[in-house]
Amino acid sequence: MGSVLERADLLIRGCVVLPMKTMDLIENGAIAVEDGRITFVGKSSSLCGIKAEKTIDARGKVALPGLVNCHTHVAMTLFRGLAEDKPLDVWLREVIWPLEAKLTSEDVYAGALLGCLEMLKSGTTCFADMYFYERAVAEAVRESGIRGVLAEGIIEAGNLELGEKTFNNSVIFAESFDGYAEGRVSTMLAPHAAYSCGPELLRRVKRKASELGVGVHIHLAESAELFRKFEGVYGCGEVEFLHKLGFFDGHVLAAHCIDLSESDRRVLAEHGVNVVHVPVANMKLGLNAARIKALVDLGVNVALGTDGPASNNTLDMFETMKFAALLQKHVYRNPGVLSAYQVLRMATLDGAKALGLDGIIGSLEVGKKADIVLVDLSKPHLKPLHDIYAALVYSTRGSDVDTVIVDGRVLMENRKVQTLDEESVIEKAERHAADLLARKP
Amino acid sequence: MGSVLERADLLIRGCVVLPMKTMDLIENGAIAVEDGRITFVGKSSSLCGIKAEKTIDARGKVALPGLVNCHTHVAMTLFRGLAEDKPLDVWLREVIWPLEAKLTSEDVYAGALLGCLEMLKSGTTCFADMYFYERAVAEAVRESGIRGVLAEGIIEAGNLELGEKTFNNSVIFAESFDGYAEGRVSTMLAPHAAYSCGPELLRRVKRKASELGVGVHIHLAESAELFRKFEGVYGCGEVEFLHKLGFFDGHVLAAHCIDLSESDRRVLAEHGVNVVHVPVANMKLGLNAARIKALVDLGVNVALGTDGPASNNTLDMFETMKFAALLQKHVYRNPGVLSAYQVLRMATLDGAKALGLDGIIGSLEVGKKADIVLVDLSKPHLKPLHDIYAALVYSTRGSDVDTVIVDGRVLMENRKVQTLDEESVIEKAERHAADLLARKP
Repeated sequence: MGSVLERADLLIRGCVVLPMKTMDLIENGAIAVEDGRITFVGKSSSLCGIKAEKTIDARGKVALPGLVNCHTHVAMTLFRGLAEDKPLDVWLREVIWPLEAKLTSEDVYAGALLGCLEMLKSGTTCFADMYFYERAVAEAVRESGIRGVLAEGIIEAGNLELGEKTFNNSVIFAESFDGYAEGRVSTMLAPHAAYSCGPELLRRVKRKASELGVGVHIHLAESAELFRKFEGVYGCGEVEFLHKLGFFDGHVLAAHCIDLSESDRRVLAEHGVNVVHVPVANMKLGLNAARIKALVDLGVNVALGTDGPASNNTLDMFETMKFAALLQKHVYRNPGVLSAYQVLRMATLDGAKALGLDGIIGSLEVGKKADIVLVDLSKPHLKPLHDIYAALVYSTRGSDVDTVIVDGRVLMENRKVQTLDEESVIEKAERHAADLLARKP
Repeated sequence: MGSVLERADLLIRGCVVLPMKTMDLIENGAIAVEDGRITFVGKSSSLCGIKAEKTIDARGKVALPGLVNCHTHVAMTLFRGLAEDKPLDVWLREVIWPLEAKLTSEDVYAGALLGCLEMLKSGTTCFADMYFYERAVAEAVRESGIRGVLAEGIIEAGNLELGEKTFNNSVIFAESFDGYAEGRVSTMLAPHAAYSCGPELLRRVKRKASELGVGVHIHLAESAELFRKFEGVYGCGEVEFLHKLGFFDGHVLAAHCIDLSESDRRVLAEHGVNVVHVPVANMKLGLNAARIKALVDLGVNVALGTDGPASNNTLDMFETMKFAALLQKHVYRNPGVLSAYQVLRMATLDGAKALGLDGIIGSLEVGKKADIVLVDLSKPHLKPLHDIYAALVYSTRGSDVDTVIVDGRVLMENRKVQTLDEESVIEKAERHAADLLARKP
């Protein structure tokens, strides 16, 4: 059957296409793009006589939806490799927080630009970020061409004034930057955690989020130690506490979700809370393992995230996919838990859903935004190719990504990023990191 | 202080050098090589007026000892991605063993060549292999220029004739190929496991190994299920059983060592057994986690291995280092367990020791063989560079390796392998894998 398409801005052809809507894959497939949206997904042979502004011969490659990193703090590239092998609270109190107290908007911009560069080079086309000076992250998104769901962090930590100030900043950011960078930026509100924001503040955040029609991004049940402290104060766990506040009504993106009871899991399932699993940072900080299978079995939507590069130490979602699959197999002592396909789906369509963006990205379907990556399958570690999903989850590295497209725009081709000058981005981040370390508090 | 060196075959200069003998590192360092051995390690500035046949300007790179993969079955590249997400026994009985029954020496050669290519491209310069048709693996070692400690597998599985035949093959291989390929091949005997070789056969293996002066490579305590079956037959665990046989006298390389009691660990420590930790394959198969810290605390020498690519699915030792560090931090719920330096040491000097080769490889020292890799530090995911060990273990991918040198010979430069034609190696492996799958039993 021929296609009626006569023209396209961009045509990708000759590759395996994984639409990621179902397990179906298309051999010798093609994708056509016009005005930033996908206008065709199917067999290359169905597109006869189409005229395209740009054609990518993608033989030997696989096209898949760009990966979606649902929890990170990209500007923390600046702290990569600082304070290794320390417990979470020591790491935060002795190293990260004192440095963050000295951060400027320019530092965040430099770090975020490096993070965007790293994400593009490893196949991530959309990320959810929570940090300070989020406007600077929005600038990095604009400049790099990536997509971002950004939120300014809200933290109280017993200081009502701080809570008020960060709340206001978060609201102003969410209002002003929703739709920024040709619509590639959307926004959320981001209360840091139940233990660092009081109940009144959390209620206000929820009311405001509902009023603005944005989601809420929060750290939830990250460590057993924090849980015990929290229980000592409030007499219940974080999930029960937030549930009683009505916090789970509306769109919630909850990162970590490690130390949950079965009844906590049911609460998350009943309220459609989106869980972000962060296996690499969780393992590196010596935390418990989230029981992702139990959440999936209850129908919870689970996405994947890298966390900030200071506790990972990369933003490579291919690596995170492998860790996610293998950690669950280990935790359940069952190699059948979390198949490669399931994990790839968490990193694409389920990730998009977690961000409320599954209507526009996350799969390769006609009408969706053209956020596409091409992975070069010609590498020795991907051969022979018996199983494309296994190859992508268990063997592919971020460096095997050859081409990255966001909104139909080619941001990287043959591993060369088109929107950023790699050397100057790196040099700028190095300068800001060195300056920050030397800076007086 | 100037150096007295007047000439070198190869000179590497301008890089950070990690000798890996201690934690000392050399900024703006240099390494000189003559006749395949290291003749200088120190500051670049100490080498004035030296004449070198070939000079590598290694600015922006780090030089470290080539990585040592202490447990694999390289030819299993052919099975990469076959039979995913299955339990160990099903995976073996239903997929791997039926295919292995059809294997030819030519298949093993094709698979081993692909494995050697993959290892070189990810910075591994020496590997310990146990498989069938090990002569074909020795040929791949000769051709690729890598170093290998090879052993033909011995298996009885209740069939005395099979035990006799594989024992004889293993002995003939060990005798004939020790020192092959300009000395880059050394040999061991490789009884598959305590549960698959009877006590009489294991005693013969040990006697023969001692007579030939070679080590013994074995799978040990890999799965709790196998342990229960074994205990049902012999009334004790594998370690106690082998200990009573005197199996641990002499050089032993024991892969996995997962399900151990404290007294098992003491036995291994007292006998100087070399343990190979295989975190990726262990997690992927849903097995328990080896308690590596407990072994290290008792003074056991621990090395790292990838296992065969059918259960990993790569041969990338950088990935294995990250998994090793993070799995132990998770198991002990302590981010301080296994520092990045410790893990890098397991993958270099301790790996060499596990193979009985620490006198000639594993660290960058004058007099040792020049097995060196250069990692390109200019990548976004390695920046800023606050901690070189953390960068190598937590951020570096195999694809960041730029140059690989074995025995002073440059096998890869600017990621181009000099000894093998990449495309034809891949094409040959693909052909053999497809043919094997289609072949009648």
